[in-house]
Amino acid sequence: MEIIVAKKAGFCFGVKRAIDLTFKLAEKGKEGVFTFGPLIHNPQVIEKLKSEGVAPTDDIDSPDIRTLIIRTHGVSPDIYEETGRKDYELVDATCPFVKKAQRFAETLSKEGYQVLIIGDREHPEVQGLIGFAGDDVVTVSGSEPLPAIKHKVGIIVQTTQPFEVFKNIVNKVIGVATELKIYNTICDYTAQRVEETIELSKKVDIVIVVGGKNSANTTQLFTISKQDCGNVYHIETSAELKKEWFTDTEKVGITGGASTPQWIIDDVTKKIREISFRR
Amino acid sequence: MEIIVAKKAGFCFGVKRAIDLTFKLAEKGKEGVFTFGPLIHNPQVIEKLKSEGVAPTDDIDSPDIRTLIIRTHGVSPDIYEETGRKDYELVDATCPFVKKAQRFAETLSKEGYQVLIIGDREHPEVQGLIGFAGDDVVTVSGSEPLPAIKHKVGIIVQTTQPFEVFKNIVNKVIGVATELKIYNTICDYTAQRVEETIELSKKVDIVIVVGGKNSANTTQLFTISKQDCGNVYHIETSAELKKEWFTDTEKVGITGGASTPQWIIDDVTKKIREISFRR
Repeated sequence: MEIIVAKKAGFCFGVKRAIDLTFKLAEKGKEGVFTFGPLIHNPQVIEKLKSEGVAPTDDIDSPDIRTLIIRTHGVSPDIYEETGRKDYELVDATCPFVKKAQRFAETLSKEGYQVLIIGDREHPEVQGLIGFAGDDVVTVSGSEPLPAIKHKVGIIVQTTQPFEVFKNIVNKVIGVATELKIYNTICDYTAQRVEETIELSKKVDIVIVVGGKNSANTTQLFTISKQDCGNVYHIETSAELKKEWFTDTEKVGITGGASTPQWIIDDVTKKIREISFRR
Repeated sequence: MEIIVAKKAGFCFGVKRAIDLTFKLAEKGKEGVFTFGPLIHNPQVIEKLKSEGVAPTDDIDSPDIRTLIIRTHGVSPDIYEETGRKDYELVDATCPFVKKAQRFAETLSKEGYQVLIIGDREHPEVQGLIGFAGDDVVTVSGSEPLPAIKHKVGIIVQTTQPFEVFKNIVNKVIGVATELKIYNTICDYTAQRVEETIELSKKVDIVIVVGGKNSANTTQLFTISKQDCGNVYHIETSAELKKEWFTDTEKVGITGGASTPQWIIDDVTKKIREISFRR
């Protein structure tokens, strides 16, 4: 059984940066270090951080906080304002690419555009972007029809959205808007990971997508793999692997999201190799 | 034989305005009235204007000029500058929608965008737009591959281009540019005329496209009609009509470009009606 692990699987630049920042704080043995919401969408990483003394919190008013870490997805300006007034230290681990998208949302709003955000409005990144986009903002996801829009529209896109979704929505918007400013804020690394996963899913018998079930970009890899491969599983850890998945397989593809740590990918690879030997 | 004449066939707002302006000048019996190039792309109208004493000229330095009319397609800023220094009167008959596109080209250039003009680079409208777009300008037509473009691109489109061409090129550009500002400068009236002609060509046995052979938007109607109707002819006047075209036809569709005068459309309709009676 041949195992191919996607080169782009695992931590992206922004996640790596946030994890490094956070573990460094933990190493210093600081007390009262919290992340505002889970730092990234990977339960195993969050558990590891908890064991190092860094827990997520939803309550920015908690008296226990000494240091609050803003997670990769970013937050809206009102959270910066509120937390800025606190006595505790604020560490901003927002992904630099998300920060860029936030700045563009602000620019578009200042320039008088109705801001259209392509993405999942419940996702924390989009929630943050909405905050930067001013009062005249609408969101749309790939599965929704285009909402009513104005004639002067500015577009930004959630950094982890597939290019096809972005393209389809731009196509609808150009039929309505007459002045359109578009910032393609899709993260290059994400785009490449999606591309690599599509190619991978075409040449293997089974795809194992590794990563948080709550991770949007990991779930996206699962959906995309299913287009070209009939045999796709989304797991968080090697414990979920089942021998029977591999009975008739020659080639296994392993991919993972931007928030999937290398150690879990390695562990999954090892376990599949063991299953392969025992056949 | 049923004859359906497209409602949107014939002079558009900008052409009507230019013709009115010019005939008014002719009526006043002014001497030395010239248009810079043919006022519109319709040889019959140009002949009519000549008989009223208004001739096209390519030479803005001619000593015969007392009044120079800038045609509907507009001119580049250097022509305004040169002609502005002359002693003669300048009458600007540029279509207001083209003027708008010229302003957008200027804005994009000032804002640091590489300006991409979608259209036919040899067309006088596009030549004018190029002049307003500054030094960093590229053009692309519907049949060409996308030229090398930068990451910050501003798009305007020749007012008479089909929406599909615009859409296809935008689709290519969003795969390359990361910041994109788009002004959809396609004239609404043109878009509606194209739409109506497509519908017309689907329900008739023959389409007669009336208008200047040198008119880009009329030629476009010819090309578009051929997609849904096997029997399409492009004529300038009723003299070109042939009886044998109509031997097996039940329904005739007549359409015309933005520069086709009503009198020619009426004449063509009358002649087809005569052919129909004589069958």
